[in-house]
Amino acid sequence: MAGSTFGTIFRVTTWGESHGKGVGVIVDGCPAGLELDEQKIQQYLNRRKPGQTRYSTPRKEEDLVEIQSGVFEGKTTGTPISLVVYNKTQRSKDYSEIAGYYRPGHADYTFDQKYGFRDYRGGGRSSGRETIGRVAAGAIAEELLKSLGIQVQAYTKSIGDVTADMDKATPENIMKSPLYMPDPEASEKAELFLERKMQEQDSAGGVIECIVKGMPAGIGEPVFDKLDANLAKAVMSIGAVKGVEIGDGFAVAGAFGSDNNDSFCKGQDGKIAKTTNHAGGILGGMSDGSDIILRAAIKPTPSIARQQQTVNRDGEDIEISIKGRHDPIIVPRAVVVVEAMTAICVLDMILLGMTSRLDRIQEFWKK
Amino acid sequence: MAGSTFGTIFRVTTWGESHGKGVGVIVDGCPAGLELDEQKIQQYLNRRKPGQTRYSTPRKEEDLVEIQSGVFEGKTTGTPISLVVYNKTQRSKDYSEIAGYYRPGHADYTFDQKYGFRDYRGGGRSSGRETIGRVAAGAIAEELLKSLGIQVQAYTKSIGDVTADMDKATPENIMKSPLYMPDPEASEKAELFLERKMQEQDSAGGVIECIVKGMPAGIGEPVFDKLDANLAKAVMSIGAVKGVEIGDGFAVAGAFGSDNNDSFCKGQDGKIAKTTNHAGGILGGMSDGSDIILRAAIKPTPSIARQQQTVNRDGEDIEISIKGRHDPIIVPRAVVVVEAMTAICVLDMILLGMTSRLDRIQEFWKK
Amino acid sequence: MAGSTFGTIFRVTTWGESHGKGVGVIVDGCPAGLELDEQKIQQYLNRRKPGQTRYSTPRKEEDLVEIQSGVFEGKTTGTPISLVVYNKTQRSKDYSEIAGYYRPGHADYTFDQKYGFRDYRGGGRSSGRETIGRVAAGAIAEELLKSLGIQVQAYTKSIGDVTADMDKATPENIMKSPLYMPDPEASEKAELFLERKMQEQDSAGGVIECIVKGMPAGIGEPVFDKLDANLAKAVMSIGAVKGVEIGDGFAVAGAFGSDNNDSFCKGQDGKIAKTTNHAGGILGGMSDGSDIILRAAIKPTPSIARQQQTVNRDGEDIEISIKGRHDPIIVPRAVVVVEAMTAICVLDMILLGMTSRLDRIQEFWKK
Amino acid sequence: MAGSTFGTIFRVTTWGESHGKGVGVIVDGCPAGLELDEQKIQQYLNRRKPGQTRYSTPRKEEDLVEIQSGVFEGKTTGTPISLVVYNKTQRSKDYSEIAGYYRPGHADYTFDQKYGFRDYRGGGRSSGRETIGRVAAGAIAEELLKSLGIQVQAYTKSIGDVTADMDKATPENIMKSPLYMPDPEASEKAELFLERKMQEQDSAGGVIECIVKGMPAGIGEPVFDKLDANLAKAVMSIGAVKGVEIGDGFAVAGAFGSDNNDSFCKGQDGKIAKTTNHAGGILGGMSDGSDIILRAAIKPTPSIARQQQTVNRDGEDIEISIKGRHDPIIVPRAVVVVEAMTAICVLDMILLGMTSRLDRIQEFWKK
Repeated sequence: MAGSTFGTIFRVTTWGESHGKGVGVIVDGCPAGLELDEQKIQQYLNRRKPGQTRYSTPRKEEDLVEIQSGVFEGKTTGTPISLVVYNKTQRSKDYSEIAGYYRPGHADYTFDQKYGFRDYRGGGRSSGRETIGRVAAGAIAEELLKSLGIQVQAYTKSIGDVTADMDKATPENIMKSPLYMPDPEASEKAELFLERKMQEQDSAGGVIECIVKGMPAGIGEPVFDKLDANLAKAVMSIGAVKGVEIGDGFAVAGAFGSDNNDSFCKGQDGKIAKTTNHAGGILGGMSDGSDIILRAAIKPTPSIARQQQTVNRDGEDIEISIKGRHDPIIVPRAVVVVEAMTAICVLDMILLGMTSRLDRIQEFWKK
Repeated sequence: MAGSTFGTIFRVTTWGESHGKGVGVIVDGCPAGLELDEQKIQQYLNRRKPGQTRYSTPRKEEDLVEIQSGVFEGKTTGTPISLVVYNKTQRSKDYSEIAGYYRPGHADYTFDQKYGFRDYRGGGRSSGRETIGRVAAGAIAEELLKSLGIQVQAYTKSIGDVTADMDKATPENIMKSPLYMPDPEASEKAELFLERKMQEQDSAGGVIECIVKGMPAGIGEPVFDKLDANLAKAVMSIGAVKGVEIGDGFAVAGAFGSDNNDSFCKGQDGKIAKTTNHAGGILGGMSDGSDIILRAAIKPTPSIARQQQTVNRDGEDIEISIKGRHDPIIVPRAVVVVEAMTAICVLDMILLGMTSRLDRIQEFWKK
Repeated sequence: MAGSTFGTIFRVTTWGESHGKGVGVIVDGCPAGLELDEQKIQQYLNRRKPGQTRYSTPRKEEDLVEIQSGVFEGKTTGTPISLVVYNKTQRSKDYSEIAGYYRPGHADYTFDQKYGFRDYRGGGRSSGRETIGRVAAGAIAEELLKSLGIQVQAYTKSIGDVTADMDKATPENIMKSPLYMPDPEASEKAELFLERKMQEQDSAGGVIECIVKGMPAGIGEPVFDKLDANLAKAVMSIGAVKGVEIGDGFAVAGAFGSDNNDSFCKGQDGKIAKTTNHAGGILGGMSDGSDIILRAAIKPTPSIARQQQTVNRDGEDIEISIKGRHDPIIVPRAVVVVEAMTAICVLDMILLGMTSRLDRIQEFWKK
Repeated sequence: MAGSTFGTIFRVTTWGESHGKGVGVIVDGCPAGLELDEQKIQQYLNRRKPGQTRYSTPRKEEDLVEIQSGVFEGKTTGTPISLVVYNKTQRSKDYSEIAGYYRPGHADYTFDQKYGFRDYRGGGRSSGRETIGRVAAGAIAEELLKSLGIQVQAYTKSIGDVTADMDKATPENIMKSPLYMPDPEASEKAELFLERKMQEQDSAGGVIECIVKGMPAGIGEPVFDKLDANLAKAVMSIGAVKGVEIGDGFAVAGAFGSDNNDSFCKGQDGKIAKTTNHAGGILGGMSDGSDIILRAAIKPTPSIARQQQTVNRDGEDIEISIKGRHDPIIVPRAVVVVEAMTAICVLDMILLGMTSRLDRIQEFWKK
């Protein structure tokens, strides 16, 4: 089971290698009637495109998406939507050398162990290009969520030891920052920090935060398919993610019940609300109506120009230095990927959530 | 979809409420031929039993497990194993009051939002007793893994601000500590800390760590069903968990590629090994043959005796104080639950991993 | 993967062996709010109980069902419903002999090939008693369908060469006939036929038909998860079924397009209807609003008293004669099982069908 | 859930409409190491191509398959294989008229009911062209099965009332007959019969049979995921299929236990065999080592030139006559589709079957 599918109702299946003919995604189970065209999806894809700032690889990837099925006269039909981005500018010769050894921090060795050999060109299936399919599917999920009054927004929380001050943040700042960091001052500091890392032929990590606003309460299933459990899988399935947290996350380990519990109260609109949101919008695996908050820890780019120890396929110790220009940091381009996976997961669980109560089911089918 | 099933090949389905007739689990897909009896499973269950130390509720729960199917003449038959623990000592009257309001930090409100009403007795389905089924299934998974040379071991890493020093740790210490903390000195400190929290009518959180030794390399699927992604879901699906990390986890956000990359080297046995294990044994979603390391952040027990603000079912602001004795900390009893979910997930992916290579499949069926 | 689960949203998992502690089922994903008690389920189970007529085994099986979870104050809560029937009257000694050989027409040999050994007592997992869990789950599915205005009804269409004339049929006749055959004349003929077979120490087969009335149109997914495809799986998964057909079924092979096509027309209520129903209510895998019609071919009971050729576990040719009283025909007791599987499948697809259109989803969540 | 995926380990997802950019399939979970190129797959696709005989539509469909991912240096890599056939010769104007009414025997009405509207061009998603993806995936499954010593072969059993005499059949005859009917005499008769039907502006149905040789015993899961249950779903999911049977199928309804039971015996090679094969190679849902035999009933082509009654989208009665040339029979082109679905299903269950016994799992991982 190659495990390239995510979701139960809204089902996303990605395919493609870095240096094959292209990368793509099948979105099966998209409800009929959503207005959709290539421009809409392209806007999301452009957020992960490289070559836009000096903090990402200058490789030129056009990444133009093509809708191949599932849309008729501008609307989704309910049948599978096939989206493809053809690979155009990949040059295989750049990668021929790495066929013979295992790059530290990459999946070269584990691929060989699992399958006996691998498509070594540009990381093959484990290339960051696989996320193109995720972002394209996420674009559809976000458009559907918007039509239900739900917004998903990810941004850079920290890079190295530079952390965004959310008090100085405005949503517009996210898009202004080349690092998708909502605090302009922090963003500038982070740029200088990355500058230094590049000079040192090194790379850096960071934290991405994602917020979902407008969630109905009661979404998520109370045991294994908890909303937070599925979000954890969705986000941890992104290549460089090494940690996921919800609400206060790891900080709860040092907290006390008296401050970590969010009190319920009568909200301004007369509805039930919470005075705080340490829980990040999820209680017992189900949304409580407040904002969903999650964070992902992103490791430093493993491809660095510095010399590194490793072994070749025969198990002999060698020294390597990875050529070519690589992103000194994965975080900024991964922001939209975290947003996409969050949107896909939340949408799927909202659709699953339509069958929890008999009275609502009866009303639905009366029509 | 109530979402009470986990796993693809080794499939675990739990059922039961805190104050219903019992709680249980169906393990479907357990390979035939494993020696299994109730004693073996009971040993794991005893590790989550309350009332054993003063840091857990003095409620007496016998929690004796009964095998109802799937075992014949002492061996698993390959058919579903039904395990049940009947509820014996639950007293419904203790809980009648909470029917009318929403406890902070609990799933009362979200259950009502999802289903329209809830079995309010003792938390109903979202009670910690649901984990009995997980631990019972985890016991079977661990026994199967042992027979394949794989060990899973969880323990308490930190409680509040007290962290175990793993240099002082021995595996035996885990079981000696009433808190399952492998560093005796830290364990004592943590006991004093909990003592204080109990006096303050408050509760505390902590971190559980779990290590898997003896993993074959190449386990996990490279895209959505990454080993770490499924582990994240498995562990985040446990009630009080608010964060999951693999290897260095959130620390990677502040690390650089030059130190975070684990170098490959020729191991002592001539096989390929790694000089460090920042990755926690997983590269590109697949095991790399070194130890799997994961951590879970556990929130403080939400049930505290202190007065708290909340609302009743009519949305009116009220003050409550939760009666009865509750664990001042969830961590120690959750250790075996984290271990169980890790074992279930790892086993499932090992079984899925048998079909990745045609040559191995051909050899398998030649027999 | 022992494959004991059926369904995506309304998920049914059976467990148990003929001579273990009991047989049962977990129904996960049942919507909250259905009134349910043991009496309701028992009525369905009584229809498959043996010992009620002379055409079924005189073994006494009380088969009293017990609800263990998922129902609170008389209503389903949305959490897993665990139903169990404890085995009370099974006598293991009756079956000790068959441990050593392979009964023709039974799963003894295939179980040994798959698992290496088997629980040989009374057929173990492949005993007809496994269907108790199906019928109990089917009872819940039928009650849910009724609350949506949908009726499912199965009956005996033919036994040997005796076929019910549906013109003489009334629904009441189904329950009056000891064979659940709606045509009283045919039922009597079939009884005489079975009498003869019993004298000859032989057994007979037949056909069960099932009709679903009140279906909304558009249920079923157009490609692999067609309504008829899932029904075929649901019904073929019943032990003795060797064929499934929808509408005219195998008769279409000899039909022409001009008569097999059902014309659409304006119905009496002004809505679109069909003048005929050769299609059995399904077009392109989706319900068309007319009655769903399916049939299952049931093989003769393989356990017969006559002498038969077979081999023992060492592969040596032997002659056997199966002792004990067995049903001379499986059909009458399987009627409610076909009905149950049909109901489970149809309900699951109706729940899945709630997410096909964005406008309906928007309206659902507006509330 | 649009339900376009089949399989658990070997997972097939089709996409595409008749008149969109193309049709395709993603095969996820294909084991690494199979030699594969476009020519191999094309051979299977050519068997369903129209325009080869006068009994299929003269529309020219090149249907050239392209491998887009998952194959590297001539071998499958274990990652998703994306296969696409671009639509080249479709002319949308031919179909514009049918947008406004519902063709009898087609999915026009049910699509509108499910999704609110439909891509009406050439049947859209429910076009026979969707099966291109199935056949392409089936080609891979068959190649994998061959490498395990397992052969799958489908052919035309009957057309109208002309039935092939299997005594006169040789495997070569299948490919010689324009109708894929292995008995040359019957094939000729059937051609004359179809000639007549075409003159009458009518269409005919038939029966396809499929045989799997070389099956290991013990494949299939004993309860819901029985081999025959999954085969029934696989085959019934093909557009025009209205019935599926295994072994003697519906004939068992008139049989007696004494002749329907297959006796076990010591085979010529000393292994356990059966003297007959009424069961069609499956007992208790698991393969018994003899040939798997299944049959599918195929309805007459619903598109006929004769005048028919129907309604338009406003529900008004109208008369229509479907223009364009259509196959007078679906059977011959569906033969390879039945074979493909059988192969996909059997392969998936063989892969699932590797985890049933602990001793075999232990041996597998020892290496």
